[in-house]
Amino acid sequence: MTRKIRLGAFLPGGGQHIASWRHPDQPADGAVSFEFHKQLAQTAERGLFDAYFLADGLATSIGGTSEGGPARVAGFEPVTLFAALAPLTTHLGFIATASTTYEEPFNTARKFASLDLISQGRAGWNVVTTATEAAARNFNLDQQHPHAFRYRRAAEHIEVVRKLWESFEDDAFIRDKDSGEFLDHDKLHPADHRGEHFKVAGPLNVSRSPQGHPVIVQAGQSEDGRALAAASAEVIFTAHQRLDTAQEFYRDIKRRAAANGRDPDHVLVMPGVSPFVGRTEDEAREKYEALTSLIRDKDGVALLNGLCGGTLDLTGYDLDAPLPPAPPTEGMKSRQALIRQIADENNFTIRELFRWIASARGHYTIVGSATRIADMLQEWFENEAADGFNILPPWLPTGLEDFVDLVIPELQRRGLFRTGYEGRTLRENLGLPFPVNSHTLARAAAQAAE
Amino acid sequence: MTRKIRLGAFLPGGGQHIASWRHPDQPADGAVSFEFHKQLAQTAERGLFDAYFLADGLATSIGGTSEGGPARVAGFEPVTLFAALAPLTTHLGFIATASTTYEEPFNTARKFASLDLISQGRAGWNVVTTATEAAARNFNLDQQHPHAFRYRRAAEHIEVVRKLWESFEDDAFIRDKDSGEFLDHDKLHPADHRGEHFKVAGPLNVSRSPQGHPVIVQAGQSEDGRALAAASAEVIFTAHQRLDTAQEFYRDIKRRAAANGRDPDHVLVMPGVSPFVGRTEDEAREKYEALTSLIRDKDGVALLNGLCGGTLDLTGYDLDAPLPPAPPTEGMKSRQALIRQIADENNFTIRELFRWIASARGHYTIVGSATRIADMLQEWFENEAADGFNILPPWLPTGLEDFVDLVIPELQRRGLFRTGYEGRTLRENLGLPFPVNSHTLARAAAQAAE
Repeated sequence: MTRKIRLGAFLPGGGQHIASWRHPDQPADGAVSFEFHKQLAQTAERGLFDAYFLADGLATSIGGTSEGGPARVAGFEPVTLFAALAPLTTHLGFIATASTTYEEPFNTARKFASLDLISQGRAGWNVVTTATEAAARNFNLDQQHPHAFRYRRAAEHIEVVRKLWESFEDDAFIRDKDSGEFLDHDKLHPADHRGEHFKVAGPLNVSRSPQGHPVIVQAGQSEDGRALAAASAEVIFTAHQRLDTAQEFYRDIKRRAAANGRDPDHVLVMPGVSPFVGRTEDEAREKYEALTSLIRDKDGVALLNGLCGGTLDLTGYDLDAPLPPAPPTEGMKSRQALIRQIADENNFTIRELFRWIASARGHYTIVGSATRIADMLQEWFENEAADGFNILPPWLPTGLEDFVDLVIPELQRRGLFRTGYEGRTLRENLGLPFPVNSHTLARAAAQAAE
Repeated sequence: MTRKIRLGAFLPGGGQHIASWRHPDQPADGAVSFEFHKQLAQTAERGLFDAYFLADGLATSIGGTSEGGPARVAGFEPVTLFAALAPLTTHLGFIATASTTYEEPFNTARKFASLDLISQGRAGWNVVTTATEAAARNFNLDQQHPHAFRYRRAAEHIEVVRKLWESFEDDAFIRDKDSGEFLDHDKLHPADHRGEHFKVAGPLNVSRSPQGHPVIVQAGQSEDGRALAAASAEVIFTAHQRLDTAQEFYRDIKRRAAANGRDPDHVLVMPGVSPFVGRTEDEAREKYEALTSLIRDKDGVALLNGLCGGTLDLTGYDLDAPLPPAPPTEGMKSRQALIRQIADENNFTIRELFRWIASARGHYTIVGSATRIADMLQEWFENEAADGFNILPPWLPTGLEDFVDLVIPELQRRGLFRTGYEGRTLRENLGLPFPVNSHTLARAAAQAAE
């Protein structure tokens, strides 16, 4: 089988761009509208996307200029939202984010196993350690745990969840009404976990789904993050602005996966891409201008200042002039230097600068025709930079519809993308192997040795 | 408006009775079948039930003889299940159980608020403290927290959740595309909670639903449980075998609610009733016999032994003879005395004893015609024993269908039950008031005082 591009769709109901909620096409209450999320899921399924992906934070981002705009202040909790969307779709996967720091592994294992049963094998868990101070203050702390602590806890949390997901072998349930035998107790396995962070007896009280267990996803870029992802993730989301850094990451992850004894083909690397798609280059550019013009000056200035940790006060400056000389600051110097570098390299005015940054926020933004966008995806896919992409439409629903109606057919014409779902489960569609229960493997090995 | 009976439906997919999974009508895999739960929800809605209710435990009950039979070993997590059922129904409420001991209030508040948004105001939270040792061992403990500790934590957990549910006033979101104003920051309120068990800053990252916040439900019978329920619950589930004890409980709860400054009419007491419904008394009796005959002798004997904490070993005894004289035992004496009392009062053989206990397990079991069952419900409803009932069909789906098709019409003929839903939210259907956000009230009071 030819290798195909995998596609996730990042579809927060409030939109991706900080001004998307003001776009004429986007419902202003999209973030809290279930009907709107249903429409997005059904459009993504029409586009044959592998999965609907939602990020998550355990605090609201007031003001929200640096965290995705005001439309992300309040919305749905992703696992409940995806549970509700699952019966309204048939093939689309659902990758929800949940925190290893502020949840207990029994609860994590259980809610994702339940989502996996409800969706008949279409669930994925995007593992995050939750870095914000605001989240820590919602969970009994005065300040966030150190980075290394969070990653140690994450590794153990995943270990416990995986043990719990193996509580029942796939054929553990007999359910013979005649004999009255319901369960083969030999095929039920407690977790019996005792570690640095967790003591969990098990077994889990949810059985396995048609895909064995949910797909494990991560997005770590740090050294700790890469190590954890290479050890346990099956899909890795990542953010790169250039082909060469994407290639460096891709090769590093594949190498690390192999060093962990894993098949590198079973660790899919998917960079984020935020596309403004036009029938022509000009139309794409018009769409970019239409959206970015909706950023209020004060929100744009606040965004720049927020990204610099409050050290870049531009009050009173001409927004159509270049950035003023650097004021004397304490801290956040590297971020301010980066922003200044972007401004200098592109010869941006202040207004052009915040418009560009509002749109990208770390993800690769591309403004162009379907052909040019397909060229870019193909180049990354065929040159060890990506196994697929996480598509972040700048606004919804038309930003998604443009991709589905213009880019997907172009990728299909080139033989790079499916023309129909290959399987029923997320795992089957991603081309990932079914995870045979380790207890079943051990029994088979013992029987073979007899 | 005439006072009407409120009805909850307790519908675990694996069935209520320990042998229900063996009943010809019940799918043996009902506990893990989403389609079956969908059918149950839609039948309950056809019957105009107020809500679908699910209990929950944070551990699997292996063997499961004392906890509802083997079909409850594994199933769905209730909040994800109800989220998935909500879009497939229009009026039915969903009351899910969640633990104050093994979850964090931010997560509890969030998942129920999300369910409430998804269902457009049809969510309820059944508050439990989780008593089992098996659950404690899934959450880093070697033994369960003391009862008093769990109840103190429960009271504070509810307090924090309620604060978080008031994070946004109902009109906090402006969402004016023209001006770019999204949120009225004066109507956003952090929880700022610091207590014995929790420090939670807030605000919550989910907005309010059409019913303000989910309905709060409890089922405590102990002194601590009654105190907590009277202080905070809007619906109270309870279990009574006799009218007089149900009356004692009902009057006690109403008195305590009033002492807390609450309107006793806004605290609904709903005892559990497990009905075997027939067109005739004989038909009902046949249904009882058909189900109880499916209890295997070894499961019945294990059930009795399990209920006595392993002190009642009946191996080798004639099951059609009375209970043997009490063996010498340590502990669990009161439970063994109760079981012996039931056997003596009814002149039961061992087999008759476990058949009766398997069916009731603490809830009122009634075997009879629709007329007789309606008589019983009416008597309790009209004599200060109940504001409504939690119906526990012994097996599914026909045990539920019998109630919907035979008992509901009889209650309607008597003017005791609705003939159509009164409102769109759970709160409206239960006749409970909309909880005005306390910050909104405070603002109105301040404005009135100006």
